[in-house]
Amino acid sequence: MRTPYSQRQERLRKALRAAKADAFLTLHGPNVLYLCGFSGSSAALLVEPRGARLWTDSRYTFQAAEEVASAGVRIVKGSLLAAVGERLRKLSALHVGFEASRLTVQQLQLLRKAAGSKVRWQKVHSLLEAQRAVKEPGEIALMQKSAALGSQVFEDVLPLIRPGVREFELAAEIEYRMRRLGASGPAFETIVAFGERSALPHARPTQRRLRKNELVVLDLGAILRHYCCDLTRTVYFGRAPARIRGWYQAVLEAQTAARSALRPGVTAGQVDEAARSVLQKHRLGRFFTHSTGHGLGLEVHEDPSLAAGQQQKLQSFNVVTLEPGVYVQGVGGIRIEDDAVVTPGEARILTTARRELLEL
Amino acid sequence: MRTPYSQRQERLRKALRAAKADAFLTLHGPNVLYLCGFSGSSAALLVEPRGARLWTDSRYTFQAAEEVASAGVRIVKGSLLAAVGERLRKLSALHVGFEASRLTVQQLQLLRKAAGSKVRWQKVHSLLEAQRAVKEPGEIALMQKSAALGSQVFEDVLPLIRPGVREFELAAEIEYRMRRLGASGPAFETIVAFGERSALPHARPTQRRLRKNELVVLDLGAILRHYCCDLTRTVYFGRAPARIRGWYQAVLEAQTAARSALRPGVTAGQVDEAARSVLQKHRLGRFFTHSTGHGLGLEVHEDPSLAAGQQQKLQSFNVVTLEPGVYVQGVGGIRIEDDAVVTPGEARILTTARRELLEL
Repeated sequence: MRTPYSQRQERLRKALRAAKADAFLTLHGPNVLYLCGFSGSSAALLVEPRGARLWTDSRYTFQAAEEVASAGVRIVKGSLLAAVGERLRKLSALHVGFEASRLTVQQLQLLRKAAGSKVRWQKVHSLLEAQRAVKEPGEIALMQKSAALGSQVFEDVLPLIRPGVREFELAAEIEYRMRRLGASGPAFETIVAFGERSALPHARPTQRRLRKNELVVLDLGAILRHYCCDLTRTVYFGRAPARIRGWYQAVLEAQTAARSALRPGVTAGQVDEAARSVLQKHRLGRFFTHSTGHGLGLEVHEDPSLAAGQQQKLQSFNVVTLEPGVYVQGVGGIRIEDDAVVTPGEARILTTARRELLEL
Repeated sequence: MRTPYSQRQERLRKALRAAKADAFLTLHGPNVLYLCGFSGSSAALLVEPRGARLWTDSRYTFQAAEEVASAGVRIVKGSLLAAVGERLRKLSALHVGFEASRLTVQQLQLLRKAAGSKVRWQKVHSLLEAQRAVKEPGEIALMQKSAALGSQVFEDVLPLIRPGVREFELAAEIEYRMRRLGASGPAFETIVAFGERSALPHARPTQRRLRKNELVVLDLGAILRHYCCDLTRTVYFGRAPARIRGWYQAVLEAQTAARSALRPGVTAGQVDEAARSVLQKHRLGRFFTHSTGHGLGLEVHEDPSLAAGQQQKLQSFNVVTLEPGVYVQGVGGIRIEDDAVVTPGEARILTTARRELLEL
């Protein structure tokens, strides 16, 4: 039986041929992991016309032997790129696809020198990203588990939302619970923002203590078996005033509209527009200062981006976040974020945390 | 009074002039933070002949206003690089230093196009890294606090090293305690490795339970107010057999030798050699499979690298890890790591955790 890795390499080779390239080089961790299963922090992977080769260093000798079956492994003492170059010299006269958005100017320069002039370096634009954006059933199963874990953590920390608790304490509790449930860590620095600080979409937890009658935004992501989830909930500590309830309902309606718009064949921009137009209808458009969502998988930001005007068409088994929000400086912010799978029917929502306004 | 940021910019300008460049562009988070105090996840900073300019997006409007005094802030709707290019067109005929080891092939291409042909793009090699490698008194004070926090966490989790505890549970406890003590998060994925798994220098915590008479390697790093610490201790759960004691003493002796070798004017390679030759004397040289240490600061791996043959000379107020180890496949590994400041006298050790072999 072929492994998913060799099947992924095979699909990539097909795309490479269409782009007139013979081989593909990546140094990007998530791409290396996707193509051969290696999860060490330093590696180069070359997908060749037949087979694949992985270079890493001696810290990972045993790990590479354990993880990698679908690529020949070479343990390198010096520069990985020099070793890649040497291999390319032997293959000679190859068109090597490389990731212009990942490889640095210096790396390309070193590779050109090491591989010699017979090798042609060809930018391949988002070739692998496009492949990764369409999840396999096995990946969706893992992402469902990751999202279930994140949702569980949200429910578990609700009792800790008490007067006097500090933002960073809640963040610590959230990340601790992720870990205890088996996550390898947070997918990003957990956001906990109280009161007027919730108006910062990317607030970093501070010493700020919770007081009665404040908004609480929790934005958390866990990595479980390499796959990320990303979940935001906004709760009110106390009884929410009418204005806050109104905003919450508007954001919820916007998110529901994005869910309904999510299907194969629509553009990413149309999903953004679905959420945005609801907030505009409620005269909250100018408070929605970011895009509606982003792809999710081995990385917490992947293709496709659900931003205004994006013409990219969605496909079945894209997995994206849907996270409209409103942010009013000096008052507070509200964001509701779920992870969703594009399917031919209704979007399948992976996150399971309650979505209605919780007043604690 | 001038801020440390404007002083840092001024020092950089001096180095730029020596490299025949007029301005410096960076997109690298830690470099942006170092030069202007902005800690958001997406930004471009241009240090100009006079003044500096920061571009970021609307998620960070308030944060940038709060954090940045020593650069003009521009909030950009579209591409940051397009905005940088526009600015460069106005300045015209500049030599802009860029980081070839950070900027991607695609980014440079976009910048060239956006800035027009009058701007000359000049690779500057590790210019800012060299500056960052020599820590200011204020930075060392922060790093001392970070190292004290890491050391405290090590001592705090010792009572949790009990039969049946799982590797990932200990990792969760370690990261939780960091957070509770005020860290913004771990500087890297915490390593907890029991028994034969300690032979993997970069072991990822698993479900593996601790049994009696096993080695335990804990390698942890915290980020406190943006500065990293990095600490490894190896303890024995039970009474260590003579062979393990022998290895431990050899690693300890190697680390002490590295400490003694650490002073301004010696090469990084000489410090590595000091540790390595001790292990060779004990016939353990072939089990020491990585380098002796690395610089530490805003990033967990910085300049200088204490690797074999490195000719770079150390300077006062470099901060480095010293972390020799031995790794015997099928048996286990031992690593002892501290963080040290190069000073004209004896190296100043920032980490305070006990260094003798603890048998629990």
